[in-house]
Amino acid sequence: ADAGDPEPLSEYLDSLTAGDQALALSRTDEAHHQLVLTTLAVEDAAELLRHLSESQAAELVESLPAEEAAAIVYEMPSDEQADLLGDLDDEQAAAILEAWPRADATAARQLAAYSDDVAGGLLVREILRFNRSTTVADVIETLSENADEFRDYDVQYAYLTDENERLVGVVPMRNLLFARRTEPVADIMISDPLSLLDSTPLDDLIEFFDTHHFLGVPIVDTEGRLLGVVHRNAVDYEATRAAENDFLKSQGIIGGEELRTMPLMQRARRRLSWLSINIVLNVGAAGVIAIYQDTLAQVIALAVFLPIISDMSGCSGNQAVAVSMRELSLGLVRPTEMMRVWMKEAAVGLVNGAALGLLVAIVAIIWDGNPYLGLVVGVSLFFNTLIAVSIGGTVPLLLKRLGFDPAVASGPLLTTVTDMCGFFLVLGLATLMLDRLIL
Amino acid sequence: ADAGDPEPLSEYLDSLTAGDQALALSRTDEAHHQLVLTTLAVEDAAELLRHLSESQAAELVESLPAEEAAAIVYEMPSDEQADLLGDLDDEQAAAILEAWPRADATAARQLAAYSDDVAGGLLVREILRFNRSTTVADVIETLSENADEFRDYDVQYAYLTDENERLVGVVPMRNLLFARRTEPVADIMISDPLSLLDSTPLDDLIEFFDTHHFLGVPIVDTEGRLLGVVHRNAVDYEATRAAENDFLKSQGIIGGEELRTMPLMQRARRRLSWLSINIVLNVGAAGVIAIYQDTLAQVIALAVFLPIISDMSGCSGNQAVAVSMRELSLGLVRPTEMMRVWMKEAAVGLVNGAALGLLVAIVAIIWDGNPYLGLVVGVSLFFNTLIAVSIGGTVPLLLKRLGFDPAVASGPLLTTVTDMCGFFLVLGLATLMLDRLIL
Repeated sequence: ADAGDPEPLSEYLDSLTAGDQALALSRTDEAHHQLVLTTLAVEDAAELLRHLSESQAAELVESLPAEEAAAIVYEMPSDEQADLLGDLDDEQAAAILEAWPRADATAARQLAAYSDDVAGGLLVREILRFNRSTTVADVIETLSENADEFRDYDVQYAYLTDENERLVGVVPMRNLLFARRTEPVADIMISDPLSLLDSTPLDDLIEFFDTHHFLGVPIVDTEGRLLGVVHRNAVDYEATRAAENDFLKSQGIIGGEELRTMPLMQRARRRLSWLSINIVLNVGAAGVIAIYQDTLAQVIALAVFLPIISDMSGCSGNQAVAVSMRELSLGLVRPTEMMRVWMKEAAVGLVNGAALGLLVAIVAIIWDGNPYLGLVVGVSLFFNTLIAVSIGGTVPLLLKRLGFDPAVASGPLLTTVTDMCGFFLVLGLATLMLDRLIL
Repeated sequence: ADAGDPEPLSEYLDSLTAGDQALALSRTDEAHHQLVLTTLAVEDAAELLRHLSESQAAELVESLPAEEAAAIVYEMPSDEQADLLGDLDDEQAAAILEAWPRADATAARQLAAYSDDVAGGLLVREILRFNRSTTVADVIETLSENADEFRDYDVQYAYLTDENERLVGVVPMRNLLFARRTEPVADIMISDPLSLLDSTPLDDLIEFFDTHHFLGVPIVDTEGRLLGVVHRNAVDYEATRAAENDFLKSQGIIGGEELRTMPLMQRARRRLSWLSINIVLNVGAAGVIAIYQDTLAQVIALAVFLPIISDMSGCSGNQAVAVSMRELSLGLVRPTEMMRVWMKEAAVGLVNGAALGLLVAIVAIIWDGNPYLGLVVGVSLFFNTLIAVSIGGTVPLLLKRLGFDPAVASGPLLTTVTDMCGFFLVLGLATLMLDRLIL
């Protein structure tokens, strides 16, 4: 893809699926991206954009001349258009909308105003909608005449509205097969269909599709006017993204996804902002060691066990965090049930704390020969495991209740507290038993 | 739900959605579970089972008399039946299949034999299938007569087979609207439709639905015989589950999901098996400290910084792991591209290592007053951050290439190596500069 001649490029791109095109694109430098997008037919370029990650797609569209960008984005489904427009800088977004027919631009502006995690941000406007007075024959004729356009609609229902665009019923497409062609389509509709408000949050949408075996749900505004349909797919996609984001956030990738194609300083800065908070917390926790420096100087063997106690408590605590996050996302636990979760975790903490404490005590005794060193580190790990699972299990619930994101904050909070407690336990106990430790 | 009288229980349960029933169920003790399931109508009981986690559902069905279990499981869609039967102990599974009509039992046995991560394990047999010689009128009549049954089928296509049950075409339901009723349905079919083998792995299914805007894909065996359809939903669901499982596994929840309703010893044992491996690795890494005990005894301040270096390197490395896992799952990086990933990570490591190293050096100098202590810990954290992101970025690719699960093994491998390197750097450098550190 080096030369300026677009012919072989075009052939090469046509031979790839949109997914492979996306991979190929992330391997070429930015100067070629424009060339690739403008070489493809607008429909194919739109398809390619849909296969890129959101930040990649936005970056690419920003680099195009507004006119070409407008033509390509116009071919995308309305929900993905809205996402993309929201990710663009304001100038390019305005230029794109400027180039569109006015009605489409207005509608796209409305959708782009919704956030991604409410029904309005996930709906598509490409649905079969008819006035309720339409006859069955007219509906079938419309379908037949626009078969190509409707092929991509993925719907099993037509939606009926009154004169004020309010949703009044839905017609399963299948029912059209059995209907007399002269009757109004309203005669075979299901009246008062289930619908949701445009402000419905993602969690409620997930719950809705979990409870109802529908492929889509009509979305209305507060006046009952039909805005579009949210498809099960879109909700599933967002649910997967939420699960993936929780994973990223728990590992310290905050502030949006990171791809290795992004500029170095952006990647470094984002990671660093999270790391700097952690190093401050870490220094705070390690301060406990400084308090007990004299004890440590006299029993230097303790220094070997401090990182072990710290790491192992972190591991136990993170297991409890993971189980709580999972139960929260499955709806199996409510944020208010901290006492119940704590009891369940404390039980595991007693068992595993005893096992791990015993193990580390044996290691200490074998290595150092002093049973009291074993006692100090074993008892410390026992209690600190108990503390770690108690905090790990309950902190996600507490953070959720307080309106913080448990995926981001649980880990740092957990390790700071367990480190402090762990160091305090080991060195505090050692200070109490100092006579026995110095043989 | 305490008394034996099922009447109020039945009313209470009917007032809940299946999702809330599932939550309520996980709050009552096991003795009541049977009562709940047998109080509900079989269709509702089946619906409730579908809302439980897989392990909960299996446990519950095992606790029921085989006859009642058979009636309830019979009402589930065939793909979920297969999952559930696979999770049951062999005896109960056999007893349930025994109670079913022979043809259904045979089919269910076949589906249950597939694993969850291939097309065969995700397909449903509830599809509209017709012989290709059927007329349009016959198809419409069949649809009309079985409208209730077909309502749940969620398909926009009818599938046509030849005399040997081989897939020969698909008919978009919509096309039936425009067809003459006397013609054979084969006249309006799309011939040679896309189909996938029953052995197609989940990754390829995700890729397929990513590239094709279909709601389902027909699945055939090696002879071309139509087995059923895999719906986009089922694939999306598995994709979400895979993302969630990666999160759980990375935090040390291995060997299947954990719910706090499970027996204590099972939860403790599963967590402990992972923790024991980690404690062994930890003791190994801390062994490096023991080698340098003399240095540490002379410069006790170093003990404060050992856990900081260990924790911070772990954080930086885990960020790199998370980005690699994400790029692997998006298909943006291939397991063979270790060199490319390493270069990208090394660049971030240089920047962040310098920033963190400087920060920790300043802390050390302020706190201890000795610039050489700052030099030792700062340089150590700089190099160890570089090592951590290099390992964190490449290890998931390497593990994937070797056929291991990167979500499980990346974390423990990373922290062990970075701990060892970190302790070695701090204490090794300190030993070299011992004269300057002891003022």
